[in-house]
Amino acid sequence: MSIPEKMKAACLVAKGKIEVKEVVVPKPGPGEVLLRVEACGVCGTDVEIRDHGLPGQPLFGEHFIMGHEYAGTVVELGEGVDEFNVGERVAVEVHKGCGRCYNCIMGNYTVCLNYGNKEKGHAAGGMTVDGGFAEYTVNHVNTLYRIPDNISFDYATLATTAGCALYAFNIFGGYVAGDTIVVIGPGPVGLTLVQVGRGLGADNVVLVGTRKSRLEVGRKVGADYVVNVKEKEDPIDIVKKITNGFGAHVVFDAAGTSSSLETALDLAIAGGKIVMVAFYKDPVTVNMSKAVKKQIQLYTVRGEGRRNVGRALSIMAQGKIDLSPLITHSFPLEEIDKAFDTFVNRVDNAIKVVIHPQG
Amino acid sequence: MSIPEKMKAACLVAKGKIEVKEVVVPKPGPGEVLLRVEACGVCGTDVEIRDHGLPGQPLFGEHFIMGHEYAGTVVELGEGVDEFNVGERVAVEVHKGCGRCYNCIMGNYTVCLNYGNKEKGHAAGGMTVDGGFAEYTVNHVNTLYRIPDNISFDYATLATTAGCALYAFNIFGGYVAGDTIVVIGPGPVGLTLVQVGRGLGADNVVLVGTRKSRLEVGRKVGADYVVNVKEKEDPIDIVKKITNGFGAHVVFDAAGTSSSLETALDLAIAGGKIVMVAFYKDPVTVNMSKAVKKQIQLYTVRGEGRRNVGRALSIMAQGKIDLSPLITHSFPLEEIDKAFDTFVNRVDNAIKVVIHPQG
Amino acid sequence: MSIPEKMKAACLVAKGKIEVKEVVVPKPGPGEVLLRVEACGVCGTDVEIRDHGLPGQPLFGEHFIMGHEYAGTVVELGEGVDEFNVGERVAVEVHKGCGRCYNCIMGNYTVCLNYGNKEKGHAAGGMTVDGGFAEYTVNHVNTLYRIPDNISFDYATLATTAGCALYAFNIFGGYVAGDTIVVIGPGPVGLTLVQVGRGLGADNVVLVGTRKSRLEVGRKVGADYVVNVKEKEDPIDIVKKITNGFGAHVVFDAAGTSSSLETALDLAIAGGKIVMVAFYKDPVTVNMSKAVKKQIQLYTVRGEGRRNVGRALSIMAQGKIDLSPLITHSFPLEEIDKAFDTFVNRVDNAIKVVIHPQG
Amino acid sequence: MSIPEKMKAACLVAKGKIEVKEVVVPKPGPGEVLLRVEACGVCGTDVEIRDHGLPGQPLFGEHFIMGHEYAGTVVELGEGVDEFNVGERVAVEVHKGCGRCYNCIMGNYTVCLNYGNKEKGHAAGGMTVDGGFAEYTVNHVNTLYRIPDNISFDYATLATTAGCALYAFNIFGGYVAGDTIVVIGPGPVGLTLVQVGRGLGADNVVLVGTRKSRLEVGRKVGADYVVNVKEKEDPIDIVKKITNGFGAHVVFDAAGTSSSLETALDLAIAGGKIVMVAFYKDPVTVNMSKAVKKQIQLYTVRGEGRRNVGRALSIMAQGKIDLSPLITHSFPLEEIDKAFDTFVNRVDNAIKVVIHPQG
Repeated sequence: MSIPEKMKAACLVAKGKIEVKEVVVPKPGPGEVLLRVEACGVCGTDVEIRDHGLPGQPLFGEHFIMGHEYAGTVVELGEGVDEFNVGERVAVEVHKGCGRCYNCIMGNYTVCLNYGNKEKGHAAGGMTVDGGFAEYTVNHVNTLYRIPDNISFDYATLATTAGCALYAFNIFGGYVAGDTIVVIGPGPVGLTLVQVGRGLGADNVVLVGTRKSRLEVGRKVGADYVVNVKEKEDPIDIVKKITNGFGAHVVFDAAGTSSSLETALDLAIAGGKIVMVAFYKDPVTVNMSKAVKKQIQLYTVRGEGRRNVGRALSIMAQGKIDLSPLITHSFPLEEIDKAFDTFVNRVDNAIKVVIHPQG
Repeated sequence: MSIPEKMKAACLVAKGKIEVKEVVVPKPGPGEVLLRVEACGVCGTDVEIRDHGLPGQPLFGEHFIMGHEYAGTVVELGEGVDEFNVGERVAVEVHKGCGRCYNCIMGNYTVCLNYGNKEKGHAAGGMTVDGGFAEYTVNHVNTLYRIPDNISFDYATLATTAGCALYAFNIFGGYVAGDTIVVIGPGPVGLTLVQVGRGLGADNVVLVGTRKSRLEVGRKVGADYVVNVKEKEDPIDIVKKITNGFGAHVVFDAAGTSSSLETALDLAIAGGKIVMVAFYKDPVTVNMSKAVKKQIQLYTVRGEGRRNVGRALSIMAQGKIDLSPLITHSFPLEEIDKAFDTFVNRVDNAIKVVIHPQG
Repeated sequence: MSIPEKMKAACLVAKGKIEVKEVVVPKPGPGEVLLRVEACGVCGTDVEIRDHGLPGQPLFGEHFIMGHEYAGTVVELGEGVDEFNVGERVAVEVHKGCGRCYNCIMGNYTVCLNYGNKEKGHAAGGMTVDGGFAEYTVNHVNTLYRIPDNISFDYATLATTAGCALYAFNIFGGYVAGDTIVVIGPGPVGLTLVQVGRGLGADNVVLVGTRKSRLEVGRKVGADYVVNVKEKEDPIDIVKKITNGFGAHVVFDAAGTSSSLETALDLAIAGGKIVMVAFYKDPVTVNMSKAVKKQIQLYTVRGEGRRNVGRALSIMAQGKIDLSPLITHSFPLEEIDKAFDTFVNRVDNAIKVVIHPQG
Repeated sequence: MSIPEKMKAACLVAKGKIEVKEVVVPKPGPGEVLLRVEACGVCGTDVEIRDHGLPGQPLFGEHFIMGHEYAGTVVELGEGVDEFNVGERVAVEVHKGCGRCYNCIMGNYTVCLNYGNKEKGHAAGGMTVDGGFAEYTVNHVNTLYRIPDNISFDYATLATTAGCALYAFNIFGGYVAGDTIVVIGPGPVGLTLVQVGRGLGADNVVLVGTRKSRLEVGRKVGADYVVNVKEKEDPIDIVKKITNGFGAHVVFDAAGTSSSLETALDLAIAGGKIVMVAFYKDPVTVNMSKAVKKQIQLYTVRGEGRRNVGRALSIMAQGKIDLSPLITHSFPLEEIDKAFDTFVNRVDNAIKVVIHPQG
């Protein structure tokens, strides 16, 4: 495969401003590969990065290339790479840990203590180093996963989202066959959690939200019960009824508000679990004594750690989860501003928007 | 529902001899219910009990009623029971722990330290107390699980088998989405493990055995690869090929021989897991240093503990596993000898044989 | 040992009013023993019960006997008891689960789903059934632990407190050798956590509080660092210094306020753990996004579950923890009001006050 | 600190033959430091390496320097190292994983799938790369731990042994306060396990062996019971007596024979744990059905993984374990042959022999 010297890339040239420019195609270093990017999803975090920058991250200058949900073809191997071959189709995970802090050595690389420190080996593609809104990009082998044959590049861009959802199960053990699960917040993560819960054999999956259209999507992708709190439906009543009065084994808070966390505390069975999968924008005010009295454990996850992107691609290929309906729009790299706009403003009911850097 | 005073029951009147007799219908004590038994499976353990008795169990006299894989209808509630209602359809698990030994208090009731001690509260239906080869039987609420509507009584008798298989996943965590799994031994337990592995999202499931017909069943129920060691197929070659040379994450030894355990040690990836789910009739001779060098953890399970019968019924109802083809024959109670014969001698390719005590 | 028919007992005759009366000595039922109570501690919960009653508990009438931290001598065995002999010295734990709800069957009896339901078998001595402020009381064998020879009855009354502290380690695994631990709140539970941390091999134990005298006790019982936030000492500075800037592996919130929980979120290392061991009187307001960003897991415990009272007695006997200085006062049963008063008002710097029902 | 260009090193010049030679002082690469080695222990594995080589390891040529239990002073920092300063005293662990295989990414670096592959980043000091029998050596920061002030260099060489013992607890959870523990095999590892068990609060520690002198050492370092099977003492009798007939919670097989593993299966309580910490030279023959019937889990560990060397140094400094009596002899580098001889032939009751490369 012949690799050009220059490529098109969408560079974050200033706060809030992306520009498609011609830049030099990067070279893979030891342990790295060069990818031809075939598809790269637009994520809420990208909007954050473009408009505000993420706290704790390096200043983004003229040459920073965003995009962390991508898939492509291996076109060149860096020194010492034999894990992959040229021509293979791969999806990525964001986080490559430094490999030398306490957390990385122990396998918890998404909370690398050298986050953002390139010199020490940390790299988060599209966040702290260049990512996928470009024709080519470089990834360390640690962040690569082969794409099963029946998964398209577009669909493979959802492997990180699915990996996050799987990690949110993994963190508390992940064995939920026959359990009752509640997901609060029918956003992309919440809808994916519903599917993963179903895929792993949860008995009842209850989805709680406020937006009718999203709850309907939830029902389609596998929620047994949907509860619209805007319409005075009471999730506590419903969960109690389903569980003989006891509550859900696991409640995911994918909404990230005081009210959603308080509801989670009410819905969980004594001895149950809550997983907090949303960022809480504001301080939350909750009756935490409910957690203590009911001996509820509260879990969190950062990113898509512990190889769950690989697990995600597997259950996507098996058909245990089907997130493909989430991809609603695609654009060439040149139209990246339109892509962001479509995503942010939910134009045409957009859910997931994908960029095709190869045109 | 009117309950008669007398009922038909298949009594183990002497070693090796079952006789269908008229006996008194038992009364449920506190915390117990009376069940009208609708179906009760014949299990290899029943043959053991009939012909030899199980070590550590009480002597079986004239009135002992075997049968531990049954399902029926609640017809009477003992004192204090409000967990179930008359008329509900339920399946059972074998083990009711004493509730007062270290293991039971800690939730490990299948290894109750007062096993077989009725006075202290232990009961294993069909093993240490009367079971399901009768028109009626008594069960403690701890051993009962509601049967989902789309599960027949016949099918519900397989909940214990499926519960054992699930427990064999539960014991090491049970989170296998995307993992490579090997099952050695395509008996009923092995075939169920294959299905559960698939049901929980394992990426590759390899079934290793020696009998062609059973391996074909294995392929039908979800094994991605079947390996017939009788035909010189080498499981090590195959697993290495699938796993880029590394080995399987989890290997189940459902064959129970030196050779199967040695193979398990060879097939597991360094850092992987082996679950021993078969009784080893003879002492095994294995190179255990392989386990130490590869840091392999070896797990075991006894029975269908930690509420996995409930989990089993759920994933059966969800269609995640389909064991119904395993049920090949049924007989009325009067023909129990023929039922045992059919089961033991695999008459007409019998796999699972069910007794219908109600005729 | 001759057992009288009548005994003295401190009865909660009305809200806020305890009266020492002569009542009938209870008889142990199946699985129970009769204890001659030698010592029974006064706990904050007793004050709660006396003055307000605990939510979810039965109405307390004339004959209710409080006291849940007691130790005594087995004087009579109920039917079927062979786990203990008459004459043995035993300490108790509060919670006897029903043995038939989901949580009890799974070994989580302190969050019994039939809490307070005597008919179903639940009993919390001194909380939902009669306890230890009496000459005699009845306990189920599940709640009894032999007292090692070198532990006095008085000291054995602290086994529940120590059991709670151990459970707070057990809940997240309990393996802390070499870890840095912070305890916020130097009350009896906090001080015990400091000792247990030291006893289990934590490398650094930091105690954070506001009261100088208690912090000094903390230093005596093993805290490597004490931080008085009232005196503008900043726990974050200190913990960062100790941990090369990273934070503590485990932070216990034994203070139970918004501020203590927020501090816990600040002190924990990314990937670390927080254990909430206090009841939060009011709703807490915290920046929960810190937990999500740092992937902090938040644990809770209810009571002294999973046989940790037995573990507590063992490490007390081994001298790994020494709580005996906490016992500052003792009174005969007749002076129970004075005992409560001494405890509540910290008369003479009282920490733990013990009742001696035998005089 | 001035660093010479040449140094003395004990090179394995041929199978079975060590020669002290002058070689070039190595340079630390990125992420590495140069250590001045102050003390390096002689281990059984060194004898293996010298006389046979370890399977799976690279051929050892003229310049290979053994020694994997060492401690020294940081004298030079490689590129990008800020975790340590020149002048700091450090101990080492053997295993630096590749950082890019499945096991390393998941935190299980002692079973690195690229074991021995230097190009991919794996290094096991003194096993696959040069180690500590030299005046200077190079280590990656991942393998370094600060030595607490009250620990000498000599004593710090035991951190790997202690780290192995701790890892053997860590693998099954490590929470043993109040538990009954049996260690079979009173070698250095077994004796260390006894101490760690005591250090972590085990209630009873039973040591089983055949050599009287070693059992006496065991008693001195904390074994509550020692059982000499050569003198017809029956460990089963003794453990049953201690545990009311039930068995030990955890049994460590540090002897590595069929007989020791069979004994372990007999000694463990139903539901208990066995940890296999010895290499089994020959195939073992055991009644594995005992494990299945009693639901015993069998664990293994390879090396001193998951940062347990750091935990070890901490509990050594705390005085929770005291292994210093194990160090019986020391020699300058020039006398390395004598040191090996003393160790191998237990000259003067040698247990641990240490080399002082600085003379």
